[in-house]
Amino acid sequence: MSQSRHEERQQRLKDKVDARIEAAQIERGILLVFTGNGKGKTTAAFGTVCRTVGHGKKAAVVQFIKGSWDNGERELLEPHGVPFHVMATGFTWDTQNRETDTIACLETWYHAKQLLCDPKLDLVVLDELTYMVAYHYLSLDDVVNALKNRPESMSVIITGRACHKTLLELADTVTEMRPIKHAFDVGIKAQKGIDW
Amino acid sequence: MSQSRHEERQQRLKDKVDARIEAAQIERGILLVFTGNGKGKTTAAFGTVCRTVGHGKKAAVVQFIKGSWDNGERELLEPHGVPFHVMATGFTWDTQNRETDTIACLETWYHAKQLLCDPKLDLVVLDELTYMVAYHYLSLDDVVNALKNRPESMSVIITGRACHKTLLELADTVTEMRPIKHAFDVGIKAQKGIDW
Repeated sequence: MSQSRHEERQQRLKDKVDARIEAAQIERGILLVFTGNGKGKTTAAFGTVCRTVGHGKKAAVVQFIKGSWDNGERELLEPHGVPFHVMATGFTWDTQNRETDTIACLETWYHAKQLLCDPKLDLVVLDELTYMVAYHYLSLDDVVNALKNRPESMSVIITGRACHKTLLELADTVTEMRPIKHAFDVGIKAQKGIDW
Repeated sequence: MSQSRHEERQQRLKDKVDARIEAAQIERGILLVFTGNGKGKTTAAFGTVCRTVGHGKKAAVVQFIKGSWDNGERELLEPHGVPFHVMATGFTWDTQNRETDTIACLETWYHAKQLLCDPKLDLVVLDELTYMVAYHYLSLDDVVNALKNRPESMSVIITGRACHKTLLELADTVTEMRPIKHAFDVGIKAQKGIDW
């Protein structure tokens, strides 16, 4: 491509981007959903926490599925003042008791609701919340109400597969992480620092 | 659903997951690609850096598109020993000179190649590299060679839209971030801590 054609193309791109930036003037916290079956949902949520904290803003994390104790992002972010609340018992692939799972979920949600009222928080991550709604451990209405009544400046990220369509409708930004391929499928072990 | 049916379903899920974990025994660094037009590609890369560093492992970041100086993730991660190399001049929506863009890109790639030889690094992020290949600023062969010859234990993340199919073929894990909707499209301003 010649330099002049390249310049024209870049100018058109720049004009488009500039027009979009000019048009976007509303300032408020947003609801982001990272869903789909691909890798990167929780990871993108933690990337955003990292961004928020790096700017000196306040974030909090609630994890609705118990991860490994040896959780890399927690080790890094907690000393930077990011509180983590992880469902202490309850839903993992190993537990199969609906009653105790529901109790653990509701206890965690109670904590999440308090965070969703705190005007000092710029970002709240509700990691793997989608499953709690899908499994009817948590009332959809209760989640919607808490999200709608949160402080205007607060952003929220919900992650997990099979997100309920009401939450997708409520969201400002939704990305579907589509798995094109996964190392795991060809026999590569999940790895510390990459997968957890 | 009854408790017994729930237990059966959960047991089947657990069996499947366990079988997959059992089958995945290969241990080596992987190549991950986060591509597509949706939000979350660079963010997921930084989430992974956060995870890696949280486990006391070593990561490095190369950014092929000049971001804002006031970059939240950099502020947080650099003090944790994550070196950032950002293309000093060159490709942004504002530059339109193919020749100076190419020089800036090659200088940045020279630096990236050195990182890709360093056996002390567990993770190297090549943020927005895809555009450099798409715009022919960088030779695809050169990129493929550097990736193939990297230390076996090193993982690499490539982010950006329109990833070349040869890179997708080479990758172990590929996620396409599909934009379902974006706050920007309804006039919400890009925000510090969320978008940069």
